[in-house]
Amino acid sequence: MFASRFLALLAGTLLATAAPALATPPPAAPTETAAAAKAAPIQRIDPTFWWVGMKNPKLQLLVHGPGIRTATPALRAYPGVRLDSVQQLVSPNYLVLHLTIAPEARPGRLQLDFKGNKKFSYAYELKQRTTPTDPSQVQGLTQQDFIYFLMPDRFANGDPQNDYIKGMRAPKVARDSMYSRHGGDLAGIEQHFDYFKALGVTALWLTPVVENDMPKASYHGYALTDYYNLDRRYGTTAQYRQFVQRAHQNGLKVVHDVVLNHMGSKNYLFLDQPAPDWFNQWPGFTRSNYNASALNDPYGSALDRKLYNQGWFDTTMPDVNQANPLVSTYLIQNFLWWVEYTGLDAYRIDTYPYSDPKFLMDWGRAMQEEFPRLALFGEAWVGSTAQQAFFARNIFQPVDGFKSNLPSVLDFQSSFALHDALKSGNMLKLYESLQGDWLYEDASRNVTFLDNHDVSRFYSVIGEDFARYKMGLAWLLTTRGIPQLYYGTEVLMKNFSNPDGLVRADFPGGFAGDSLNYFKSRLGQPGEAFEYVRKLANYRREHPFLHSGKLMQFIPQEGVYVYFRYAPEGTVMVVLNGSKEARTLDGARFAERTGRFTSGVEVTTGAVLPDLKSFTVPGLSAWVVELR
Amino acid sequence: MFASRFLALLAGTLLATAAPALATPPPAAPTETAAAAKAAPIQRIDPTFWWVGMKNPKLQLLVHGPGIRTATPALRAYPGVRLDSVQQLVSPNYLVLHLTIAPEARPGRLQLDFKGNKKFSYAYELKQRTTPTDPSQVQGLTQQDFIYFLMPDRFANGDPQNDYIKGMRAPKVARDSMYSRHGGDLAGIEQHFDYFKALGVTALWLTPVVENDMPKASYHGYALTDYYNLDRRYGTTAQYRQFVQRAHQNGLKVVHDVVLNHMGSKNYLFLDQPAPDWFNQWPGFTRSNYNASALNDPYGSALDRKLYNQGWFDTTMPDVNQANPLVSTYLIQNFLWWVEYTGLDAYRIDTYPYSDPKFLMDWGRAMQEEFPRLALFGEAWVGSTAQQAFFARNIFQPVDGFKSNLPSVLDFQSSFALHDALKSGNMLKLYESLQGDWLYEDASRNVTFLDNHDVSRFYSVIGEDFARYKMGLAWLLTTRGIPQLYYGTEVLMKNFSNPDGLVRADFPGGFAGDSLNYFKSRLGQPGEAFEYVRKLANYRREHPFLHSGKLMQFIPQEGVYVYFRYAPEGTVMVVLNGSKEARTLDGARFAERTGRFTSGVEVTTGAVLPDLKSFTVPGLSAWVVELR
Repeated sequence: MFASRFLALLAGTLLATAAPALATPPPAAPTETAAAAKAAPIQRIDPTFWWVGMKNPKLQLLVHGPGIRTATPALRAYPGVRLDSVQQLVSPNYLVLHLTIAPEARPGRLQLDFKGNKKFSYAYELKQRTTPTDPSQVQGLTQQDFIYFLMPDRFANGDPQNDYIKGMRAPKVARDSMYSRHGGDLAGIEQHFDYFKALGVTALWLTPVVENDMPKASYHGYALTDYYNLDRRYGTTAQYRQFVQRAHQNGLKVVHDVVLNHMGSKNYLFLDQPAPDWFNQWPGFTRSNYNASALNDPYGSALDRKLYNQGWFDTTMPDVNQANPLVSTYLIQNFLWWVEYTGLDAYRIDTYPYSDPKFLMDWGRAMQEEFPRLALFGEAWVGSTAQQAFFARNIFQPVDGFKSNLPSVLDFQSSFALHDALKSGNMLKLYESLQGDWLYEDASRNVTFLDNHDVSRFYSVIGEDFARYKMGLAWLLTTRGIPQLYYGTEVLMKNFSNPDGLVRADFPGGFAGDSLNYFKSRLGQPGEAFEYVRKLANYRREHPFLHSGKLMQFIPQEGVYVYFRYAPEGTVMVVLNGSKEARTLDGARFAERTGRFTSGVEVTTGAVLPDLKSFTVPGLSAWVVELR
Repeated sequence: MFASRFLALLAGTLLATAAPALATPPPAAPTETAAAAKAAPIQRIDPTFWWVGMKNPKLQLLVHGPGIRTATPALRAYPGVRLDSVQQLVSPNYLVLHLTIAPEARPGRLQLDFKGNKKFSYAYELKQRTTPTDPSQVQGLTQQDFIYFLMPDRFANGDPQNDYIKGMRAPKVARDSMYSRHGGDLAGIEQHFDYFKALGVTALWLTPVVENDMPKASYHGYALTDYYNLDRRYGTTAQYRQFVQRAHQNGLKVVHDVVLNHMGSKNYLFLDQPAPDWFNQWPGFTRSNYNASALNDPYGSALDRKLYNQGWFDTTMPDVNQANPLVSTYLIQNFLWWVEYTGLDAYRIDTYPYSDPKFLMDWGRAMQEEFPRLALFGEAWVGSTAQQAFFARNIFQPVDGFKSNLPSVLDFQSSFALHDALKSGNMLKLYESLQGDWLYEDASRNVTFLDNHDVSRFYSVIGEDFARYKMGLAWLLTTRGIPQLYYGTEVLMKNFSNPDGLVRADFPGGFAGDSLNYFKSRLGQPGEAFEYVRKLANYRREHPFLHSGKLMQFIPQEGVYVYFRYAPEGTVMVVLNGSKEARTLDGARFAERTGRFTSGVEVTTGAVLPDLKSFTVPGLSAWVVELR
């Protein structure tokens, strides 16, 4: 039966069948969310709307409704749009429609007419694209940026009305539990745009803001339950679009955190599965081995590789089968949708290597073809620079057909190395981690960081030592790459990743009744820390040779690591003394970079370095010296 | 004057000038050594002789004699041989002759006539090549091999007559000093061919045997003083050729250890330098920074790179300037010479990355073009798999024009990882070190090892723990690659690399008066160790699926690392339990490799593993199980 239907569609006969609509078309107002586009008995169509003028003319619609499989859809005549085929799935509640949208198609509403037990219609909206012509949208990221990474549930509660949404599965906020929701939201972040700007931040990365209607631990956002809706405890989908626009108006870019590998077990696609092959199925719950080595181990077992790619990240996170072309297209369209809809600037891709390798190449190509300015960086939490570079654009021949097209990754290797270097005093490790950049196409796109939501906080890792803290921050804000600061590091927030989850504690002052308010008052060392970051970040922003100049580094000697950022317009010399002892350096060694200069000024203190020929650096110190 | 001479040579006019010889031609007997080829006032010509039939028809002769620069050489007519040009150097004591030897040239003696203050002639021998037609010569290395690495001064003294050579700079033997000579020689090694064969060894790697006429620490061999003479304390150059032939007759290959980067400061080429640009010169003694990272650091300073490549390895080891084409050719010819002359099977290249990168490519190409069967492996003692693979054939795009053509390297990374794994019990490190093989063109050519002359001995590193010792040996003899054993590890020789040099102690029984003689009697644990190595090495040799089969490894779990070597003819399962606790394994995990088998036999003990479905491995144990 399916085959004959398919042939009939190809012949275009069904396109002429304009059955009268049973359901009323959607209201005249633009249908901005899935909820608004619903028309019984169709519960939803994903993508919830689309655009004319996309480079890829193909559009795959996933129609969801009880018993919809037996319905026969047709497209009423619409210039430039063609219904190519209709595909039934295992589940009775889905239909897939494959359309082609020609470049000349105009915005409007497609009328889809369904015949079967009932007859009904659905008005599917095609919008006009805006991002290609608006330079304020999809700005991407460069080394000019300074990313502030926060968990929206934990940063600031700007709208107490949305803390608890009736009908959603999680209980009410419980700020005394690290695994409950605390009430932070988009409004809270917006209220502190000035804080970010004062600090010198140019981009905000939020943990996923898309719906996580999970009964437990929904605050982290990595268990998506609806690819097309914002989590309403942060705001509506439309409010998120406004949030991006307002951020742009305030000189702040937005990094959207996405998960390709898995979804939440309460996702409607899992609760009512289109087909078993939309998920990586196992006889019983089977966990990932979490070891990306299996992917490109020339001696690896098929089992280890399968466990890595197809094992589940967690019991509550079904593993998505992106090798299924329908699933691949579903995901690709969804992530195109968010960019075009909101104008966001970058995707941070969670658990990047866990996804199907071929899918990753397809996904990356699709994003970059449609949005050349969009920045993409992946989380590849692996153990070596080579393995990390394997997941970014690199200088390797393809391995088993895989050659990553991801512009960059989160730079775990330099972060590990910084921790080791500051703890041991052996700065060689830090030098070596950057030396490994020869493996990348361009490592300056990598995102550097001191810590994040999954690891112990930097200030705790270094034993709450303020001298080492400044060394770490100085490195972060002067080395190559795009620096990322985890919220609160600028005010010395601390704690270890285990066992209590306190590395995800609330930002002091973001919530009603907070006794400490770091937005308003930062006395003592938190204030000193904030000032140090602020000065460096603003100096960095204002001096292109620092953020975008070339890097030259010298092999550390006696625990002192010296490097330069330089351009015709200026040169900064960074001196990190990891030793506890003062060291006197012979400046002649650095003549390649200091040649035309005689002195310098340390940019955080204003102290003058009168003579570059020889200078003594105190133990455990960081100098950021503009040469004169 | 030079230019006009050069033009005259090109026109061939001088070739017709057959001046009467002042000096008598060399004796009729083949001139096997430089010493014999001397004809006053020419002290030597390098290469000391050459061959017809080389693929590269070019030959560069370095003529050394007092005041020779002003002499005018000519070649008496010799069919197929042409003197293309003559080149003067800065020193008055050298001349460089560039010849072309056509394929049709026959063996014989070239008469070189020199005119100047005196007239004299030199008969330069061209021999017939033998290696291309004799399959017993230049056999190369494969995974079938098991290399025994020894220091000839420290292994066995077979000829007390050559312990001290009158006129050489080092004092007499002093076996109580680790930095003096002890008297070992080629004869001593030959006397123990049966020992190697019993152990299952198939190849001998000797630290450099070429002349090291240095006043101190000459025993290690890495400070060459004459590229064309054997160190006579080991035997003559001709005796070394015989040594290689006898080794081949005994089923033993020979690995010749070479140094491209530096020479000894008592080398005649340094004492009487052809030109300053034969060496990397510095205003004062300047040491290498010993850090290969500078070579391919995208942010590296020119100074750090220059220090690495051109800094001296030691005060007594002048750094050779291989960027000088004359020097490059001198070295290339020398290493072709040793292969053709002796029939040796492999070169181990000391301090490989320290040499000029372009030279390394030229050198490697020349060796492989002339001797396709010759094995080459380099010492690249670096800190990561990527950096190590950079110096072997790999999957990287060229970096700054460098793309190594070296077939393989000494596998420091797996050796580091093995030590870490056995000390910590974390077998993941060992697994990961092999996982990194995806970076190589073919890592099975790499040479694996537990220890060597530069590091602490394996048995000491693992705390003299016999269980861990067996784990290490089992790994060495079953993993991919060509295993190398450092002399004495088979009888539990121990000691740390610092501070006393005892890792280079004499092999007990190799020297007259030794109270212990491990060649004859190995009681107790040294005997057990020897037997363990012997059994595994012989099993390995006799079972091609072990030495040349494919490798499949499984990600270690709970400290247990399981891997397989397999081929249609058979399968070996290796189980290394790094944990102190016994572990019960579910065999189903390994079904990809155990599928057609039901039981197995541990090859060192003969113990039967009755059931592959589930088995318990004792803590800290190694199983090498042939599946049945």
